[in-house]
Amino acid sequence: MGDTIQSVERAAAILRLLASGPRQLGVAELARALGLPKGTLHGILRTLVHVGFVEQDDTTGKYRLGATLLHLGSSYLDVNELRTRSINWADALAGRSRESAWIGTPHEGHVLVIHHVFRPDDSMQTLQVGTYLPLHASALGKVLLAYDPYGESITPPLQAHTKRTLTDPARLEAELAQVRARGWAAEMEELTEGEVAIAAPIRDARGLAVGAIGIRGAVERLAPGGDLHMEFVSYVRDAARAITRDLAR
Amino acid sequence: MGDTIQSVERAAAILRLLASGPRQLGVAELARALGLPKGTLHGILRTLVHVGFVEQDDTTGKYRLGATLLHLGSSYLDVNELRTRSINWADALAGRSRESAWIGTPHEGHVLVIHHVFRPDDSMQTLQVGTYLPLHASALGKVLLAYDPYGESITPPLQAHTKRTLTDPARLEAELAQVRARGWAAEMEELTEGEVAIAAPIRDARGLAVGAIGIRGAVERLAPGGDLHMEFVSYVRDAARAITRDLAR
Repeated sequence: MGDTIQSVERAAAILRLLASGPRQLGVAELARALGLPKGTLHGILRTLVHVGFVEQDDTTGKYRLGATLLHLGSSYLDVNELRTRSINWADALAGRSRESAWIGTPHEGHVLVIHHVFRPDDSMQTLQVGTYLPLHASALGKVLLAYDPYGESITPPLQAHTKRTLTDPARLEAELAQVRARGWAAEMEELTEGEVAIAAPIRDARGLAVGAIGIRGAVERLAPGGDLHMEFVSYVRDAARAITRDLAR
Repeated sequence: MGDTIQSVERAAAILRLLASGPRQLGVAELARALGLPKGTLHGILRTLVHVGFVEQDDTTGKYRLGATLLHLGSSYLDVNELRTRSINWADALAGRSRESAWIGTPHEGHVLVIHHVFRPDDSMQTLQVGTYLPLHASALGKVLLAYDPYGESITPPLQAHTKRTLTDPARLEAELAQVRARGWAAEMEELTEGEVAIAAPIRDARGLAVGAIGIRGAVERLAPGGDLHMEFVSYVRDAARAITRDLAR
């Protein structure tokens, strides 16, 4: 990789920092976090406001993410081939399982949710597209780790999300070996108490796992008594194979 | 406004161009569209790839938007106060009307959809958050035009989306005067054939219209025989007033 342009890198760092919490930041806070002089930041912030990537609060003078990013994010989804090729299969999976369906890809040490179909009932659900899930504590993430072509090692400490999260790297590695052996992953209340998830790999034309698809729902429905109902596993694997076939065309 | 930083502005221009169509662009196409030398573009593109804002296709070598933008866009929604304060009212509006509910704000000559609640039935619907609607051809847009504090004039030509789109600026101005007089806007198959929409303004604590909320659905349900059922108008206006009251606190 050749030289990168410092001001563009700094602009990206500002945007990431503003995205890292549900809050606004002032110039002093940004300067401290990024280790840059306020004067340098002012020029970049002024430009980011000018192009609509950042907004400045009228009353506090602090900065937050701008509306243009919402439009760019939505445009990203339109050009994401995995998502456009998977949408119908994800709908069908949610319909068959009567549970919410999810598609994720690996992104910067997380699972990035690129598609989310609501559970087909009248319950209130919040769309999770664009959010991150932890690799080690989600079924989607375990699939992505198990089939990672670069075999990147898991970097402790592994955060505990519930009492059942796998936080011991050796235990997680053993589970990933099992995921590879049977071709799918389970998440048994490891991310959220009372919730269970199942996922399987989506492969591209070269056979690389480029994403994972799965379902998520209440433990009482998917694993009453603690054992996963295997028909849910078959629904997830059917959907993953169908998308994989489509991508190979 | 003081000086802006050229490379950051150019990076933003590249991202907007990549977002403007569902496609990938090569360096030559980008250079032509932006009127910049390829060498200049290479440095910026390399940086944008490095920070995850742009991805390069392995086979074609062309560029497309990157996954980081999806995460930034999702983070924008978390900090958008209008959206967070409106979500429950939009849910209630969709529940009362049994139609899809929408919230939009003005953004760069469009309506930016910041919230979308699906029609509460089992039909397949695609989430429209982050997409643009035309100001002159949508109920949300007509509300935003009618109450625009800057009174920006409508710039012809006005694109015809259906036979019923208002493309004559004088007729549109007359309709906006009517919107202001009665406090709500209708869209009668002006954007999509067979679809009707209703919207009303959301005002901030200073009384400025910062957004619009509305519903959208089949003409047969909302306006059988061509006349809007006024109870739907009352649902939309109730929701708009409730959010306005919340924002004034």
